[in-house]
Amino acid sequence: MGRKKIGVIGTGRIGKLHIQNIISQIPDLQIVAVADIAIEDNRKWLESIGISELYVDYRDVLSKPEVDAVIIASATDTHTPIAVDAAIAGKHIFCEKPIDRTIENNEKVMKAVQDAGVLFQTGFNRRFDHNFARIRQLVADGSVGDVQIIRVTSRDPAPPPIEYVKVSGGLFMDMMIHDFDMVRYVSGSEVKRVTALGANLVDPRIGEVGDVDTAVVALELENGALAVIDNSRQAVYGYDQRLEVFGSKGQVVAGNDTPNNVEYYSSDSISRDKIYDFFLDRYPDAYVNQFKAFARALNGEIEVPVGIVDGLRATQISLAAGQSLREGKSITMQY
Amino acid sequence: MGRKKIGVIGTGRIGKLHIQNIISQIPDLQIVAVADIAIEDNRKWLESIGISELYVDYRDVLSKPEVDAVIIASATDTHTPIAVDAAIAGKHIFCEKPIDRTIENNEKVMKAVQDAGVLFQTGFNRRFDHNFARIRQLVADGSVGDVQIIRVTSRDPAPPPIEYVKVSGGLFMDMMIHDFDMVRYVSGSEVKRVTALGANLVDPRIGEVGDVDTAVVALELENGALAVIDNSRQAVYGYDQRLEVFGSKGQVVAGNDTPNNVEYYSSDSISRDKIYDFFLDRYPDAYVNQFKAFARALNGEIEVPVGIVDGLRATQISLAAGQSLREGKSITMQY
Amino acid sequence: MGRKKIGVIGTGRIGKLHIQNIISQIPDLQIVAVADIAIEDNRKWLESIGISELYVDYRDVLSKPEVDAVIIASATDTHTPIAVDAAIAGKHIFCEKPIDRTIENNEKVMKAVQDAGVLFQTGFNRRFDHNFARIRQLVADGSVGDVQIIRVTSRDPAPPPIEYVKVSGGLFMDMMIHDFDMVRYVSGSEVKRVTALGANLVDPRIGEVGDVDTAVVALELENGALAVIDNSRQAVYGYDQRLEVFGSKGQVVAGNDTPNNVEYYSSDSISRDKIYDFFLDRYPDAYVNQFKAFARALNGEIEVPVGIVDGLRATQISLAAGQSLREGKSITMQY
Amino acid sequence: MGRKKIGVIGTGRIGKLHIQNIISQIPDLQIVAVADIAIEDNRKWLESIGISELYVDYRDVLSKPEVDAVIIASATDTHTPIAVDAAIAGKHIFCEKPIDRTIENNEKVMKAVQDAGVLFQTGFNRRFDHNFARIRQLVADGSVGDVQIIRVTSRDPAPPPIEYVKVSGGLFMDMMIHDFDMVRYVSGSEVKRVTALGANLVDPRIGEVGDVDTAVVALELENGALAVIDNSRQAVYGYDQRLEVFGSKGQVVAGNDTPNNVEYYSSDSISRDKIYDFFLDRYPDAYVNQFKAFARALNGEIEVPVGIVDGLRATQISLAAGQSLREGKSITMQY
Repeated sequence: MGRKKIGVIGTGRIGKLHIQNIISQIPDLQIVAVADIAIEDNRKWLESIGISELYVDYRDVLSKPEVDAVIIASATDTHTPIAVDAAIAGKHIFCEKPIDRTIENNEKVMKAVQDAGVLFQTGFNRRFDHNFARIRQLVADGSVGDVQIIRVTSRDPAPPPIEYVKVSGGLFMDMMIHDFDMVRYVSGSEVKRVTALGANLVDPRIGEVGDVDTAVVALELENGALAVIDNSRQAVYGYDQRLEVFGSKGQVVAGNDTPNNVEYYSSDSISRDKIYDFFLDRYPDAYVNQFKAFARALNGEIEVPVGIVDGLRATQISLAAGQSLREGKSITMQY
Repeated sequence: MGRKKIGVIGTGRIGKLHIQNIISQIPDLQIVAVADIAIEDNRKWLESIGISELYVDYRDVLSKPEVDAVIIASATDTHTPIAVDAAIAGKHIFCEKPIDRTIENNEKVMKAVQDAGVLFQTGFNRRFDHNFARIRQLVADGSVGDVQIIRVTSRDPAPPPIEYVKVSGGLFMDMMIHDFDMVRYVSGSEVKRVTALGANLVDPRIGEVGDVDTAVVALELENGALAVIDNSRQAVYGYDQRLEVFGSKGQVVAGNDTPNNVEYYSSDSISRDKIYDFFLDRYPDAYVNQFKAFARALNGEIEVPVGIVDGLRATQISLAAGQSLREGKSITMQY
Repeated sequence: MGRKKIGVIGTGRIGKLHIQNIISQIPDLQIVAVADIAIEDNRKWLESIGISELYVDYRDVLSKPEVDAVIIASATDTHTPIAVDAAIAGKHIFCEKPIDRTIENNEKVMKAVQDAGVLFQTGFNRRFDHNFARIRQLVADGSVGDVQIIRVTSRDPAPPPIEYVKVSGGLFMDMMIHDFDMVRYVSGSEVKRVTALGANLVDPRIGEVGDVDTAVVALELENGALAVIDNSRQAVYGYDQRLEVFGSKGQVVAGNDTPNNVEYYSSDSISRDKIYDFFLDRYPDAYVNQFKAFARALNGEIEVPVGIVDGLRATQISLAAGQSLREGKSITMQY
Repeated sequence: MGRKKIGVIGTGRIGKLHIQNIISQIPDLQIVAVADIAIEDNRKWLESIGISELYVDYRDVLSKPEVDAVIIASATDTHTPIAVDAAIAGKHIFCEKPIDRTIENNEKVMKAVQDAGVLFQTGFNRRFDHNFARIRQLVADGSVGDVQIIRVTSRDPAPPPIEYVKVSGGLFMDMMIHDFDMVRYVSGSEVKRVTALGANLVDPRIGEVGDVDTAVVALELENGALAVIDNSRQAVYGYDQRLEVFGSKGQVVAGNDTPNNVEYYSSDSISRDKIYDFFLDRYPDAYVNQFKAFARALNGEIEVPVGIVDGLRATQISLAAGQSLREGKSITMQY
């Protein structure tokens, strides 16, 4: 038990967020070392908040005996080698999603983790959102009965730069992967068959690089339920994140969060402020809560709440969705 | 039991509404005769819907032996003589609110009704609104516990013509009288003390004729609860009608009705259509339901749901509020 | 212009509803004759509301020269012969949905109607609902921009008797046909491709007769948009009827109607009353408004708002959905 | 400009909260010294977060030259001497509400502050709440037009211990003082006349010590508007905090916050989770934002947002409300 020592690898936007959240709100975790290929860019800030062990090479973090666990928040294509090295070094691992865009690498990481016997948590932060966690709880406690239909809406406020789209792995791997995980999470069931529809309605350049920007995916689950997910790269009204689960005993519905609940009644209409249009504003509690859970898992109080298999499955479904769209037919999952 | 024969006296806007509602939706009531000082203006319409006994003098309606009950929807200052005559003629009475603006006349009507042993229902239609009736039910069934605080908001979309304001009896008698009745209805308690604040913020002409257009009245009830009512003659966003009851076991809140529930998410805001701005659009069910209840009372199935004392009490409180405002002090009710 | 004379054929639940609505709320239509194979069962009621021309054989209604139009509300399998005869008799037609469960008969009716030059309105009442009509308006006026994703949820409170299920034509033809029409209505676009998923989760007897009780259908529209519909035969919380349209300029969302808007704050939770669980309580305005529109169409003021092609298209899509489910592949529509 | 050095006096619940918030979220403020009469109780925690200058006597904090400002979060009856000493020492001051329960002491503090020329911010945190700040903004930018009616509801989840009630200064000074400040804040107007109604409905022991637990206060403002506040010491459903402003151009309404927005549709009702029942859960952003503003004021970027006069006025109105209740009449404010 007690305070666990953490190394952070990668100090981009998400790495920084994790560092700030842990320092201010997770007293059970202590960040003792940080590595980044451009560590100098953040040296001043990191030292001002009391972190002085700073490295360019992540292996310098792994070689520190006092480090209990590492947070891997570097570029996606570096996850596999870092995670494998971390496992070999005996460090527990928190890894951003996706673990890797290929199943081969996912399995390579899984083998290393299993061989080393370390804990591995995948960064599907949305499971820890106040709304979606409440939905899961109402499904798990039987309030919804047998799950029959799941509806997920997930839309970004604006498409990423086209250069990012090119290397993103596509909408299913980059964006809908969160929703595939959400369906598995709230249903407690595996996906059996995937049917994907896609369109290029937002920006023709996205179509030119072979991706879609609008998609509807229908899933058949092993427990018999049906799920449907829709994604768009551009919702002009903000970051639209909703979830519904319908079952034999009732339905649970999570709407969007808003910055305030003030209603303005004018002579024209009744209006409220827009929903959030930035994921960090929408999911602040989720980013904190996933590390509260990780801290508890490190202390042996709970199982790791989002395991390495969860990361693998979401990748597998993402790949199947892409295949379904390309081939124009349903894809039966093979695990 | 069976279908009761009704005479209608007064065919202004409200009288017409009652006739239409009864014909289309109250099969237990049959309108057999109608009187109005300007009956010719409506002869064509009334005949087209099958009503052929049409009179200028209301006494012609009262003299018809087959008439079981009359609806008095004529000008307020004619209510007392018509109601007294109707009672003497042995007709049951449905009378629009207010029964009369003086306590003396209210008591004159009450005496005639009691002497004749006829039924008398006062037209406080809002008691029959789907929202407010549900609130009353949740108070009556104990869900709210002991009532402690009542909040009523009642605001008109626009002030009436200044000529009407002059003869209206003032905001308390003309407008807030509904809310005084509502407080008595939902609380099941009499009002003990009245404190009124008023202001002239909407139209200076209303102040010039000695009335207020904005008012807040605080009430202490005999059961110990406190109530507060606010009125305005002009809510630019529509006809604002809300009610809350707070008690030892919880709270019930009725918001405004809207013509539809569509939410429009634009890049600026989330908006809905305005609330209704006409009382007939806001209270259609209430106007029908009060006659369903009247029909049942005529058939002996239920007590008259809004008795003559209810009409009297609301008038008494309205007068006390006016006195409180004029004298700048609380008024203790004397019944 | 003026009041049109109507004959009604079929006095089951829906036929009766149409008669009542027209009498009480559509002054421009006058019901002059009614036919039903069991007319005697309703003779007393019909005569009491002033309709005395009552027949067993619908041809007696068609042979009356003064009849301008007929409402066909008889059993679905009688629609085609009656509609054809009505057209030949030169009567305008309002026909309940579905016109017929086969495309052949739909086309037979269409030809008769075209040859006779009569007006034909299909009874897709939901287009006239206050919420959905407002959604259509916001799409049509450009507020939503280009339509990209449509979501329809439509769930019944409880499955019909299994005997009905057997002859219903299946979930797609009996239930989701409304939603296919809704997608066409709000999008203003035809359906290009249909992919259906189905499951038997509510009642095994429904599966035994070869039908599904839970379904998700994904549609690709000619304008490029994607749509997704989910249906269930049993939502224990009531009759769930919702619609969303997402586009390049925003989103419109219609939720469920509720009998009142009272919120009850107890020491356990905040709760509201259930949504309606009966379609006549949910869609009262829609049933009235479709005849207001029919009356205006008969008077030449507007085009028929739901034409015969609308009836045909919905049937075609329903059949395609069934085929997609049976064959496990997407079906491209052929018109 | 730059980071300001802060001394904290008082480390009870609120003092601790301020320390945590400043450390984690206000980089422009640096806590360098803390005093508390029981400082040893918190020594371990304070040292663990890097604060090592710890004192029993607040004068040790005031005597440190590097301290720019102090936060006074000690017991209310120590505010005046500490604030006067702090002003004399040339320290800027953030003082918890109420500054003091007597007008004399408020004025003593005010004189010291004015003589010393230091900044003074009163801890009316609710002005910084996301909902209420948005309301103020919509009033200030003219969206509401001329303010005419303000409604404030503020109810605690449960009464404080009776020992606390005895020394609290009474409901108006202890609880409604926040709402008096809120009315001044959102209206931008001073209070002209106060009329208070009170009752003892929650716990008879509160009445026995001469206090009320339920109150309605009506205010007439100098700008002509009317305001009404209701308070209860016990709302069994949680911490009820709502605000409405009605004006010539519209209305703004802030409802309660909830821990999530999930709706559960069961076969009985539609329900949501209760509202928060702890003020720290309800106002987390307000407690942070008031120090963001204080930091900006210390840096000369903005005026102090809640000045010493704001603290005085709220105390004056609280005293007037008590007098109104005792004497049974309206009290005209004299400033």
